[in-house]
Amino acid sequence: MPPPVGLRVGMVGGGQLARMTHQAGISLGVRFRLLAEASGSAAGLVSPTVTLGAPDTATLVAFARDLDVLTLDHEHVAPEALAAVRDLGVAVAPGPEALLYARDKIAMRERLSGLGLPCPRWRVVADRAAALDFAAEIGGPVVLKVSRGGYDGRGVWLPDGPGGLVAGGDGPFARGVPVLAEEQVSHRRELSALVARSPGGQAVAYPVVQSVQRDGICVEVVAPAPGLDPDLATRAQEIALRTAGELGVVGPLAVELFETTAGTLLVNELAMRPHNTGHWTIDGAVTSQFENHLRAVCDLPLGSPTARTAWTVMVNVLGGDVGDLPSCLRHVQARDPSLRVHLYDKAVVPGRKVGHVTVSGDGVSAGERLEELRARAWHAADYFAGRIDG
Amino acid sequence: MPPPVGLRVGMVGGGQLARMTHQAGISLGVRFRLLAEASGSAAGLVSPTVTLGAPDTATLVAFARDLDVLTLDHEHVAPEALAAVRDLGVAVAPGPEALLYARDKIAMRERLSGLGLPCPRWRVVADRAAALDFAAEIGGPVVLKVSRGGYDGRGVWLPDGPGGLVAGGDGPFARGVPVLAEEQVSHRRELSALVARSPGGQAVAYPVVQSVQRDGICVEVVAPAPGLDPDLATRAQEIALRTAGELGVVGPLAVELFETTAGTLLVNELAMRPHNTGHWTIDGAVTSQFENHLRAVCDLPLGSPTARTAWTVMVNVLGGDVGDLPSCLRHVQARDPSLRVHLYDKAVVPGRKVGHVTVSGDGVSAGERLEELRARAWHAADYFAGRIDG
Repeated sequence: MPPPVGLRVGMVGGGQLARMTHQAGISLGVRFRLLAEASGSAAGLVSPTVTLGAPDTATLVAFARDLDVLTLDHEHVAPEALAAVRDLGVAVAPGPEALLYARDKIAMRERLSGLGLPCPRWRVVADRAAALDFAAEIGGPVVLKVSRGGYDGRGVWLPDGPGGLVAGGDGPFARGVPVLAEEQVSHRRELSALVARSPGGQAVAYPVVQSVQRDGICVEVVAPAPGLDPDLATRAQEIALRTAGELGVVGPLAVELFETTAGTLLVNELAMRPHNTGHWTIDGAVTSQFENHLRAVCDLPLGSPTARTAWTVMVNVLGGDVGDLPSCLRHVQARDPSLRVHLYDKAVVPGRKVGHVTVSGDGVSAGERLEELRARAWHAADYFAGRIDG
Repeated sequence: MPPPVGLRVGMVGGGQLARMTHQAGISLGVRFRLLAEASGSAAGLVSPTVTLGAPDTATLVAFARDLDVLTLDHEHVAPEALAAVRDLGVAVAPGPEALLYARDKIAMRERLSGLGLPCPRWRVVADRAAALDFAAEIGGPVVLKVSRGGYDGRGVWLPDGPGGLVAGGDGPFARGVPVLAEEQVSHRRELSALVARSPGGQAVAYPVVQSVQRDGICVEVVAPAPGLDPDLATRAQEIALRTAGELGVVGPLAVELFETTAGTLLVNELAMRPHNTGHWTIDGAVTSQFENHLRAVCDLPLGSPTARTAWTVMVNVLGGDVGDLPSCLRHVQARDPSLRVHLYDKAVVPGRKVGHVTVSGDGVSAGERLEELRARAWHAADYFAGRIDG
């Protein structure tokens, strides 16, 4: 009888997403291998096999040679490198064709608009004058985005006033990549619709969540989105499922959406990897986004995305005044024995994501009503950041 | 600002308990290091730092030198080796003084009887004749156990009939270790009371569970134990908490109990490590036994042991006719999207524990009544073992 061999999955990227993917894969018998650019990364510190290097074609091909599946914790991998790995007979998920729409905001807008999916009004602009023309044409302020390389609010320029003037001078136009101008959407809040999709087309949709951003970084997620019209929730899931299918996504797809003041939905961004707005699923859903990422890319049947409780609140731990996060554990754990803490073992830099906390509840019991859950999660995150001391 | 350094925890033993402890520690920012006797172990395959070697004093001292905490996934470590590590200033949990009572069944019986905790009638016996004398004296069959080195039913000889005769001839008496004779308890079922305790004495008690053993191996756990008298459940927790406190346990303590046909409790065995009867806590409790093990040995406040749902059923996956467990995943996951699977990536040997599955439910909804949960969990375990093919 041959020994069992765990599925050999390699992941590009050493961040917390790879860290939590490995954690989930342990239950599935996955043999996880990591390609990280630097030693001591969040994922490298917990992974059994770490290759150091940038994901260029030669490195990626050498890394992937004895894998069953290659996957990614970020979108910044060249399509030709992924194609070369696929030529080895290794499954690559997401594939380069799908990944284009997460790497390139202009390609994404063109494709989604072509599919009739709801987007803010947008235009590719060559310079500041063209951006101002666009703003004048739509009669409102515009947001400028570089088409590639942005994340967590980087690569995005917000207007500096209601008059439609674009702040930041020639910033985006000096980057050497095309620039996208989008109408600044007047919205009630931001939502996220997370799905996972297998090669054969099986897909699961998680409950639609509300996310709060500060300075372009997700700081809080409430699952499900409080008070969301059920028809709008269904519509958001449909948008995400249709996008995943049309783009041929394999793995997770997070669709960040604006719920406009008019009560409609507009697609903001796409991500084809585990997403910050899905971290709540580790503690709050039957199957986490990390496990479903692995199940999708390994072509295993997907797990139930159902929420375990009425509410789950996730708050990011951002680097602050406290360098030694483990020392904070004692306080927050003593105060709240049901708090779920996830630390990424990253050096503390102000504003950097270094962990997250989750609190779940039934919405009815003492301490488990939504506002209480939010207060509990924020207390822990504030304490980790040194914003409060008790 | 100094970089954060995760708590450096070393664990002795390369089995599934260490594997799942590392998995839990990732969330806490633990820097896990493993001492395993062989390469390719269940824990070694997923751990970032693996030292190969037996836990003798010299090896253990070298392994532990730059740890904050040393802990164990089995009891078979010599007390002098643990004491030598403690002399380095490294926390050792459980300590050798407590561990004695999990390593030596005679010491355990003497201590628990001395504390007035309920045990089966027992006697240290020098030979077969003495065992038969004891059987005649108590008027019923006796079980023989070697005092040290047994696990999963090994080192235990059951009587071969109601007449009190001891089977196995001189088996236990040829082992060179003292032999314990215990009355064979007439019981309704076996229960397990799992607690975790911190150095300062904080302790949490998980719901008392029912366990089913076959050939000395735990095969099924139902949490909480169905129909258990609430007073008896409280009594079981009290026994476990008192035992942990009196013995100075740091970490988890599982107390296996008989619920006798007379409706009383008798202590069967103790374990001072994560225990098979606690695997349900990964998916079924707010804080898993593995996380609370780490929180206890790191002297962090303990997490809530509360069950997340009305029922959780855990069934062990034992090696059977199917060598390639990952190939079975497709079938069991497709059939039951809410099934939680945990594979240990161990070579399949008939009867060997190679994984476990868990199903949780509210006890009311379709598919979530207890008998349905049991059927779902057993279906998956039977399929993994090749006992059924659909």
